[in-house]
Amino acid sequence: NASIKFDKILFKKDISASKAHANMLGNQKIITEKEKLRIVNALSEIEIEIKSNKMKFKNELEDIHTHIEKRLIEKVGSLGKKLHTARSRNDQVATDVKLWLRDEILTINNLLRQLQSTLIEKAEKNLHTIMPGFTHLQVAQPITLAHHLMAYVNMFGRDRENSKKILDIHNYSPLGSAALAGTTFNINREETASKLGFKAPMRNSIDGVSDRDFILDALNSCCLIFLHLSRLSEEIILWSSAGYEFINLPDTFSTGSSIMPQKRNPDAAELIRGKSGRIVGNYVSMFTVMKALPLAYSKDMQEDKEPLFDSIETTKDALKVMSNMIRDISFNSDKMIEMCEKGHILSTDVADWLVDELKIPFREAHNVTGKIVALAEKKNLQIHNLNANDFKKIDKRINTKLLNS
Amino acid sequence: NASIKFDKILFKKDISASKAHANMLGNQKIITEKEKLRIVNALSEIEIEIKSNKMKFKNELEDIHTHIEKRLIEKVGSLGKKLHTARSRNDQVATDVKLWLRDEILTINNLLRQLQSTLIEKAEKNLHTIMPGFTHLQVAQPITLAHHLMAYVNMFGRDRENSKKILDIHNYSPLGSAALAGTTFNINREETASKLGFKAPMRNSIDGVSDRDFILDALNSCCLIFLHLSRLSEEIILWSSAGYEFINLPDTFSTGSSIMPQKRNPDAAELIRGKSGRIVGNYVSMFTVMKALPLAYSKDMQEDKEPLFDSIETTKDALKVMSNMIRDISFNSDKMIEMCEKGHILSTDVADWLVDELKIPFREAHNVTGKIVALAEKKNLQIHNLNANDFKKIDKRINTKLLNS
Amino acid sequence: NASIKFDKILFKKDISASKAHANMLGNQKIITEKEKLRIVNALSEIEIEIKSNKMKFKNELEDIHTHIEKRLIEKVGSLGKKLHTARSRNDQVATDVKLWLRDEILTINNLLRQLQSTLIEKAEKNLHTIMPGFTHLQVAQPITLAHHLMAYVNMFGRDRENSKKILDIHNYSPLGSAALAGTTFNINREETASKLGFKAPMRNSIDGVSDRDFILDALNSCCLIFLHLSRLSEEIILWSSAGYEFINLPDTFSTGSSIMPQKRNPDAAELIRGKSGRIVGNYVSMFTVMKALPLAYSKDMQEDKEPLFDSIETTKDALKVMSNMIRDISFNSDKMIEMCEKGHILSTDVADWLVDELKIPFREAHNVTGKIVALAEKKNLQIHNLNANDFKKIDKRINTKLLNS
Amino acid sequence: NASIKFDKILFKKDISASKAHANMLGNQKIITEKEKLRIVNALSEIEIEIKSNKMKFKNELEDIHTHIEKRLIEKVGSLGKKLHTARSRNDQVATDVKLWLRDEILTINNLLRQLQSTLIEKAEKNLHTIMPGFTHLQVAQPITLAHHLMAYVNMFGRDRENSKKILDIHNYSPLGSAALAGTTFNINREETASKLGFKAPMRNSIDGVSDRDFILDALNSCCLIFLHLSRLSEEIILWSSAGYEFINLPDTFSTGSSIMPQKRNPDAAELIRGKSGRIVGNYVSMFTVMKALPLAYSKDMQEDKEPLFDSIETTKDALKVMSNMIRDISFNSDKMIEMCEKGHILSTDVADWLVDELKIPFREAHNVTGKIVALAEKKNLQIHNLNANDFKKIDKRINTKLLNS
Repeated sequence: NASIKFDKILFKKDISASKAHANMLGNQKIITEKEKLRIVNALSEIEIEIKSNKMKFKNELEDIHTHIEKRLIEKVGSLGKKLHTARSRNDQVATDVKLWLRDEILTINNLLRQLQSTLIEKAEKNLHTIMPGFTHLQVAQPITLAHHLMAYVNMFGRDRENSKKILDIHNYSPLGSAALAGTTFNINREETASKLGFKAPMRNSIDGVSDRDFILDALNSCCLIFLHLSRLSEEIILWSSAGYEFINLPDTFSTGSSIMPQKRNPDAAELIRGKSGRIVGNYVSMFTVMKALPLAYSKDMQEDKEPLFDSIETTKDALKVMSNMIRDISFNSDKMIEMCEKGHILSTDVADWLVDELKIPFREAHNVTGKIVALAEKKNLQIHNLNANDFKKIDKRINTKLLNS
Repeated sequence: NASIKFDKILFKKDISASKAHANMLGNQKIITEKEKLRIVNALSEIEIEIKSNKMKFKNELEDIHTHIEKRLIEKVGSLGKKLHTARSRNDQVATDVKLWLRDEILTINNLLRQLQSTLIEKAEKNLHTIMPGFTHLQVAQPITLAHHLMAYVNMFGRDRENSKKILDIHNYSPLGSAALAGTTFNINREETASKLGFKAPMRNSIDGVSDRDFILDALNSCCLIFLHLSRLSEEIILWSSAGYEFINLPDTFSTGSSIMPQKRNPDAAELIRGKSGRIVGNYVSMFTVMKALPLAYSKDMQEDKEPLFDSIETTKDALKVMSNMIRDISFNSDKMIEMCEKGHILSTDVADWLVDELKIPFREAHNVTGKIVALAEKKNLQIHNLNANDFKKIDKRINTKLLNS
Repeated sequence: NASIKFDKILFKKDISASKAHANMLGNQKIITEKEKLRIVNALSEIEIEIKSNKMKFKNELEDIHTHIEKRLIEKVGSLGKKLHTARSRNDQVATDVKLWLRDEILTINNLLRQLQSTLIEKAEKNLHTIMPGFTHLQVAQPITLAHHLMAYVNMFGRDRENSKKILDIHNYSPLGSAALAGTTFNINREETASKLGFKAPMRNSIDGVSDRDFILDALNSCCLIFLHLSRLSEEIILWSSAGYEFINLPDTFSTGSSIMPQKRNPDAAELIRGKSGRIVGNYVSMFTVMKALPLAYSKDMQEDKEPLFDSIETTKDALKVMSNMIRDISFNSDKMIEMCEKGHILSTDVADWLVDELKIPFREAHNVTGKIVALAEKKNLQIHNLNANDFKKIDKRINTKLLNS
Repeated sequence: NASIKFDKILFKKDISASKAHANMLGNQKIITEKEKLRIVNALSEIEIEIKSNKMKFKNELEDIHTHIEKRLIEKVGSLGKKLHTARSRNDQVATDVKLWLRDEILTINNLLRQLQSTLIEKAEKNLHTIMPGFTHLQVAQPITLAHHLMAYVNMFGRDRENSKKILDIHNYSPLGSAALAGTTFNINREETASKLGFKAPMRNSIDGVSDRDFILDALNSCCLIFLHLSRLSEEIILWSSAGYEFINLPDTFSTGSSIMPQKRNPDAAELIRGKSGRIVGNYVSMFTVMKALPLAYSKDMQEDKEPLFDSIETTKDALKVMSNMIRDISFNSDKMIEMCEKGHILSTDVADWLVDELKIPFREAHNVTGKIVALAEKKNLQIHNLNANDFKKIDKRINTKLLNS
C-alpha cells in the first residue's frame, strides 16, 4: 500500500502546491497572514531538508504528502493541520503529478531537440554519402545518408509537437476540487492556478479528481518516441552486424561476451529496442486501471504513478543514450556504396528514364525494366553493366543513340 | 494477403488523390493537358460507378488501388498506366489513409459535440437534482446531478481538443515521396498537398512512407474517448441495477433474457464498456506492428488498416448509441435523495463548519467528526439526526448555541 | 544497464546452479576433485554471507552473477575463474530464472489453495444464505451465497492446474547450452539437470538460450489469476457500497478519507482490482520485447526480469491480502434477502413451473411469465404477491387449482 | 449488436450441442421420445441446409443460435420452443464456443506438427551445412543449419504441448448451467457432457456461464506460436536481404514493387511478423473485456468471439504459409560459410582449447584470446590466419608444438 518508495520524487511539487495553497488561504483570510507566513516558511525549510537528504522516509507514513504534512506539524504545531483546509488528498495528488509531469515533458522536449541536433550534425557531414535505401529490407534506390538521418529528425520533430500538445490540452489546475465536490470555503482557484503556472483551474471539480487523461496522453507520447527509437536502434543493430558493417559502434555503447572474446555487441541499441516493451506495457496498464471506473476517485488510481514515472525515466535515459551513441558512431561509406552495387539499385531510375525518353506509360517502362533486370540476373551482372546489344535484344527502342544520350 | 475486403472504404480518397496527382502531372507537363483531362474524367466516372455499387470487388485484384487503376485502364487504355508516373503504392496508400482519417476525425468531433449537447441538456434539467457524490463507490458528499453530468462534458471536451491536435500535427502530405526516395520527375508537391487540403508536403520522403504516427495518435484518442465512455457506461449499469435504481433505461437500449422474463438488461452500456477492450487491443496491435521496423516501408505496415478502421467505426457507433441512450434515460431523483440519507453524507460539511466556527485546524475537526459519525453509527442514525446532547458529549464546544447558529 | 537492483533475488538459485555445475565439472574430470570441493564450499560461504546481508551490492558489478563470481575469486583465487568453464552467461541466467520461477509457482499454488480454503470455509457457513444471483448486474435468480463463492473456488482451481501445466511444459534445463552452441568440453547435462530438479536438459542449445516461453506462460497465468481476483474485488467493492451493503469490510482492509470522516473505503479490493493493470501490462511488455528477435540471445531479453518479478510479487501479495480479507468479511444476509424481493426474482422458476404443469413449450411459458411480470410492475408488486384473479386474467390455465398445487 | 456476421461459424457446434440436449431431455422424460426424434431430425436437416448455403442470414435474427431456433420452429412448430427447456443462451453459447475451440486447437496442433516435419526435413538435408551462429546479431560461433532449424522444432513442440494442456484444463461442459443457477428440471449433465466429448460437466453453474479462461488461454497459446513465427520470419527477412543472401525466397512467397522492377520482397514473412500485432492485441482485448466483471454473465462478454476467431484463423493461416515457405526456401551455403570468415568465429573454441591445453582458468584464456583477436583485427586477418610468431608474441605458452598438436 505504501507508495513513498516511488512518489517521493514529487516532493518539490508537493511543496510548491502547498505553498500556493497556503498563500491563497491567507489572502482569502481563511487563515491569518501570520499563519500563512509560518506555514510557507516551514515548507521552504522542509524542501531544503529533503534536498539535503535529511528526511528519513518511512513506510508507515505511506506517501510523500503525509511525510511533508507530518514534518510541518512537527515544525509549526497544530497550525500545520490547517494547511489541509479546503483541500483533499484527491486534488492535492492530481495537482502534484501534473506539475511534475509538466517539467518532465519540457525536459523530454529538450532531449528530443538535442537528439535532433546530433542527427542533423551527422547529416550535414554526410550530404554526399551514398547509401542504399531499403524497402522490405531489400535494396531499393540509392539515397544519401543525410536523407536517411533526416527522416528521424522529422519523426522526433513530431514528438516535440506532441509534447506541446499535451501541455496545451492538460495544463489546467485540479487544485480546489477537494475530495470531489469543491469546498464551502471561499477559496480562489484562479490564484493558485496562476501561481502554479496553470492556464486556469479545471472547470469541473468531479472531473478534476477523476481525470487521468494527461497521464495516458503522456504515455502515448512516450510510445511514439519509442517507436522512433526502436526503429533507429534496429537499424544500428543491423548496420553493425556482419551482413552490413555500415557503422562502427563506439566501445562505450557496445560490450563483449563472457565466452566469445571477439564480440562487440550493440548492447545499448538492443536495450533501447527492448525497452519499447515496458513503454507500451505501461500504456496498457494505465488504460486497464482506468477502464470503467465510476466517478470520482477510486483507490485503483494510485496505480497511475509507477507506469508514468517509469515511462518518463526510461524515455529520458534512452534519449540521452541514443544522442551520445549517434554522436560517436562512425560510418563506413565504402560498405554502403558496395551494397549499392547489389540489387540493381538503379532500376527505378531506368524505368523513369524510359518513360521520359520513349514517352511510354510508367507501367510499360516498369515491364521493360523487369526484363532488363532478369537478363542481368541471368548474366550475373548489375544492370548498368549490361551492354548495348543486351538492351536492344530486350526492346528495340533502347538503341545505341538512346543509350548515349 | 488481399485487403480489398476492408480497404474499399478508401475509394473516394484514392480517387481524389489520383485526380490531384493527375492534374499536377498535367500542369507540370509530365503528361499532356488532354491526357490529364481524360484521366480525371475517367476517375470521376469510376467514383460514380463505385458509389452506385457497379464495381465488382475481386480478391485477385487485392486492394482498392488496383481495382481503380485496372478500371481506369479499361476506360482510357494504356494512358491509364501513366497515372502511376512519379508515384508509388507507398506514398499513394499513406495519402489515402491520411485523407480518410481526416474526415473521420471531423465526424468524431461532431459526434462528441452532440454527446456533449445531450449531456448539457440533461444537466440543465437537473440543476437542482441532489444525488450522492461517490469516491471509492462509497457515498461521499451531496452533489447535483448536473454537476456530475458536466464532468463528462469536460472529458469529451478534452477529446475534442485532442482531435484538433491530431490534425494540427499530422495534416501534411506524403504524396510525392514515391517509393521512399522521391522522384526524378519535376513534380509539384505543394500543388497536390494544397489541393488535397494538407498544410504542406511532408518534408522528408523516407519519413513520408515510413510514418504511421498519425494512426497511433488516432488510436490513442479513441482510447481516451473509450475511457470516458466506459466510465459513463459503468455508471449507467450501476445506476440501473437493483442496488441503485437511479435511472430507468429506455427499452430500446435494454433487452430481456432468454430465460428470465422480467429482466431489463443494460445491454447497450455493457457493449460499449466491453468494446473498450478492442480499442486498447487495436492500439497495442499497431504499436507491436511498428516496433523496430527498419526504414522505409515494410509489408508489416499493411496491418495498419484493420485496427484503425475498427477503432474509428467502433468509436463512431458508440458515441451515437451513448448520445441516444443519455437522451432517453429518465432519472429517479427520489432514489438519489434516499441514498443521500446513507453514509453520513454531510460529515465533510460538518468538519468544514467546525473549522469555521471553532477556528480549529481541519485535521482536528476531522477527528471530532469521526467521533460524531461513530456515535451515530452506534445509534443507527445519520449524523443530522443526533441531538444536542449527543454532540455535547463528544465535544463540549459543540453546544446548543453553536448548533442553532 | 545494471540489473543488480532487481536480479539479486536470484542469488540462491545462482549459487545452487553454480554448485551443480562445479560438481559436474569435477565428476567429469574437467576440474580436479579438490578444485571442485574448494569452489563448492566457497559458494556455500557466499550464500551465507548474502543471507546475512554481508554482501554490498554495487552498480559497477552490474548483476548478481558477477557479484558472486567476483566474491568467489576473492575467496579461492584464480581457481574461481574455472567455474565459468563450459558455461556462458546466457545459459546461466536462463537456468537461474527458471529455478527461481519454479519455486515461486509452487508458492503461488499454495496461496491459491489457501484462498480456496478460506472461500470454502465461508461457503460452508453459508450453505443456506439466500442471495440474488445476477446477470448484467440485474437481479436474476435466487442462489445461495455458498454457490456464488464456490464459483471462485473453481476459478482458482483452474489457476492451480495452470501452474502445474507450466511446470510440466517448461521444467527442462538450459544449463550446458553455453553461449548458444553448446561446448566442446565433455560435460554431463543430465547430471546438472537432475541435481537441479529439472526433468531433463533442453534438447537444443540454441533454443536453450533463446527461449522465454516459460516467462510468457507464467505471466499469462498471473493474468488469469488477476481476472479472477479483479472480479472478486469488483464484487467486494459493489457489495460494500451503499446500494448493496451485503458485506461489512473489516477495518484492516478499508481506510478512511482525508476529508470525509465517515468513509470506509474498500481500499484493498480497489488496489487488487487496479493492479490487474500492471499484470496485463507486464504480459504485453514481455511479448513486445520478444517479438521478432532473431536467434539466439539478444540484450533486449534482459528486459524479461522486471515484468516477471513484478507480476509474481504482485500476485503473491494480492492472493494473501484477498485470503485475509475474505476471512474477515461478514455478510449481511438480511440485505441479500431484501434484494431478492426486487426484480421478480422467481420468474424463471414460474416459467419452468408452467412448462411442467401446463406441458407448454418453454418459449410460450416465457411469454406468459412476461405478462405476469408486467402486471406485477403495474401494480407495484413482486410476482409472488399477485392474487389468483390476477393470474387468471393473464392466462385461464393458471387457475386456483393449479396455484394451490 | 448483431453477431451473425462472425458467429455463424459456430453452426455445426450449435447443432451438435442442441442434439445432445434434446436427446438428454428425451431420455430424462422431460420431452417425449417422439418429440425428441422430431427435434433431432429437424436439426440434422438444418445442418445440411446451412452446409449447402441454403440459409439466408439476417441481421434482425442477431446470432446463429436464433437463426437455428427460428428455423427449427418453422420445421416442427411450437415443439421447437421446447428445445430451450432447461437451457439458457448463456450456457448454450459457452458450450458452442468451447466445442468449436476444441476442434480448432486440434487443427492447430496438426499444423504445428506439419511445420515441424518441414523444418526437420530441411534440417536433415543440412546436417553438415555450416553457418554462423549469432548472438546480438553478431557472428558468434559456427553451428550447423540443422542445429539452428531444430531450435524452431523445439519451440513449436512446446506449442503443441501447450495445446494439449488447454484441452486438459478446459474440456469440461458448461451445458446445464442454464442462466447461472442451473435448473429445476431433472436434467442429466453427465450425459450431455459425455456425448459432446467433454470430460465431465463443469462443477459450478455460476462459473459455467462466467468463465472465459479457456479463451484467454487459447489466445496466449496463439501469442506463443506467433513469438516463434515472428522470430523465424525476422530471420527469413534478414537472410533474404542484401547483407546476408543466405536464402532464396520462392517467387510465390515474395512480390515485386510497383515502382522498382528488380525487387523480390519477402512479403509473406513480413505479413506473418506484422500479424503478431493483432495476436497480442486480441489477448489484451479479451483481458480488458473481462477485467473486473461481476458474476455471472454480462453482455460485455459477447466481445469474446471476434478476438478468438481472429487469432485462431490468423494462426492457422500463418502456420500453413510458413510451412510452405520453409519447404520452398533454398539455402546458399556458400554465403553462410563466407560470413563465418568474419568475426573471428573460432575464438570461443580457441579459448576452450587454451583451457584444456594450458590448464588455465577460462577467464584467463578468455583474456588471452582477446589479445589474439585484437592482433588479428590490427592485421586485418581472421584469427586462424595468424602465424606461429604472432601467437608467441601474445603468450609464450602458445608455442609451435602446441599449435601443431
